[in-house]
Amino acid sequence: MEGYGLFLGLLGSAVALGFLSVVFALVWALHYREGLAWDGDAAEFNWHPVLVLTGFVFVQGIAIIVYRLPWTWKCSKLLMKLIHAGLNTIALILAIISLVAVFDFHNAKKIPNMYSLHSWIGLTAVILYALQLVLGFAVFLLPFAPLSLRATIMPIHVYSGLLIFGTVIATALMGITEKLIFALKSPAYSSSPEEALFVNTLGVLIVVFGAVVLWMATRPHWKRPAEHNPKLLQQNGGNEEESTMTDYNNADKTDVEFNSEAAARKRNAKLDEAGQRSTM
Amino acid sequence: MEGYGLFLGLLGSAVALGFLSVVFALVWALHYREGLAWDGDAAEFNWHPVLVLTGFVFVQGIAIIVYRLPWTWKCSKLLMKLIHAGLNTIALILAIISLVAVFDFHNAKKIPNMYSLHSWIGLTAVILYALQLVLGFAVFLLPFAPLSLRATIMPIHVYSGLLIFGTVIATALMGITEKLIFALKSPAYSSSPEEALFVNTLGVLIVVFGAVVLWMATRPHWKRPAEHNPKLLQQNGGNEEESTMTDYNNADKTDVEFNSEAAARKRNAKLDEAGQRSTM
Repeated sequence: MEGYGLFLGLLGSAVALGFLSVVFALVWALHYREGLAWDGDAAEFNWHPVLVLTGFVFVQGIAIIVYRLPWTWKCSKLLMKLIHAGLNTIALILAIISLVAVFDFHNAKKIPNMYSLHSWIGLTAVILYALQLVLGFAVFLLPFAPLSLRATIMPIHVYSGLLIFGTVIATALMGITEKLIFALKSPAYSSSPEEALFVNTLGVLIVVFGAVVLWMATRPHWKRPAEHNPKLLQQNGGNEEESTMTDYNNADKTDVEFNSEAAARKRNAKLDEAGQRSTM
Repeated sequence: MEGYGLFLGLLGSAVALGFLSVVFALVWALHYREGLAWDGDAAEFNWHPVLVLTGFVFVQGIAIIVYRLPWTWKCSKLLMKLIHAGLNTIALILAIISLVAVFDFHNAKKIPNMYSLHSWIGLTAVILYALQLVLGFAVFLLPFAPLSLRATIMPIHVYSGLLIFGTVIATALMGITEKLIFALKSPAYSSSPEEALFVNTLGVLIVVFGAVVLWMATRPHWKRPAEHNPKLLQQNGGNEEESTMTDYNNADKTDVEFNSEAAARKRNAKLDEAGQRSTM
């Protein structure tokens, strides 16, 4: 693997940043706020940031880069798909419980639901994430989708996965902003008490976590390699990844034969499409 | 151009969404708030969202996709770099003026500066954006940087450009959240007055604008095509784009000669790197 040392350093940073974010969320709830409980009061609300940061930020981030881990490249693609889908399912379940906590708290306190930009974008992100999971399961895990459909859906799946991940982080930043303004009254947020500095730092941590995950997920040379023998792949039944790889080999031959600019561009486009594979 | 109709539709949507966001920011300032002035009062603060949305969101978004416009592909790369750098410079100037407005307002009103997560991440984004502009100018516009340096910096430049753009949108969402909580007291934000619904809608508009720009910027088949004749390029002096293209052609020959998996992977990585070109 090219740049293995850098990859390991970034992976270590991502895991450390994600883990630290969860620790910060727990310290915020348990030390600065009212703790954690399921009582319709503030301690129930506090499950919201803890579960969002654990599932919807940390676990989702790891699910995105799980194909990149070079020691998993010997595992079957099916196993890796199951791990990717499994991690995303855990993230979705934690996100849904975190929503129940906040709706329950609002209802108990007679606070309106769904009035803030945070809630509008956050709920949309959860719904799109669930759709992405169902669609990913149907197209890439179940054996029914034709290869052409998989190849068409793959770049959309990768793009929407990364977009939802970024949107979730943006939504978390809005949530932190809201909560600090509402919770800090004397001293106010604007007088920068210790809790404000601590939770602002949490916000910075998740932005850096997101940046590291997005860098790792978009480096082409860190992708899980595809097998290179079309005959072997046909024997194995193939999948959408191998399909793009076969196109690539065919396009190669075409280029050598004709060496035209149009053929080169066509191959370039196909290669780039193939480059989109392997995040699910 | 592959998918020209879709490209035109998305370009039209991006321009419409960006323009509508600026209109929404103006209506917010002029109709719902205190208008626009430079008087140390709320009307001075209002320049902050108007200028951020105009420059740091709309103009920056257009600067990101300007290389994709197929009718510019006949223009020289130098001209397109100047337009890209020029648009980003305009965006930076507007962002800096928007910061002056908010610091000036805070100082006049004895409100502390730089206490919120919005301010921490927003100021960091402006500083990184300025560094990105200076570095981009030095490496890609001035004629001194060796081609190998340009090829090394290009993927970092593209990644940080898109990351800063996404971070700016996240910061705008935090800013909207802050301002609505502070400004709406009776009726409060939580009772969803008309202004709250209007400005939440503005938040949704900029997220969709960002999503469209990021889709357009990351589609490999919508990239500005590179010239394909290494001899011609050498005569013209070449640049980082042509350099990666030359590597690509050389790598091609190597592959045909050896046809090894290692060579194929190396070429794949180089091609993918080359695929990162042309966003500056």
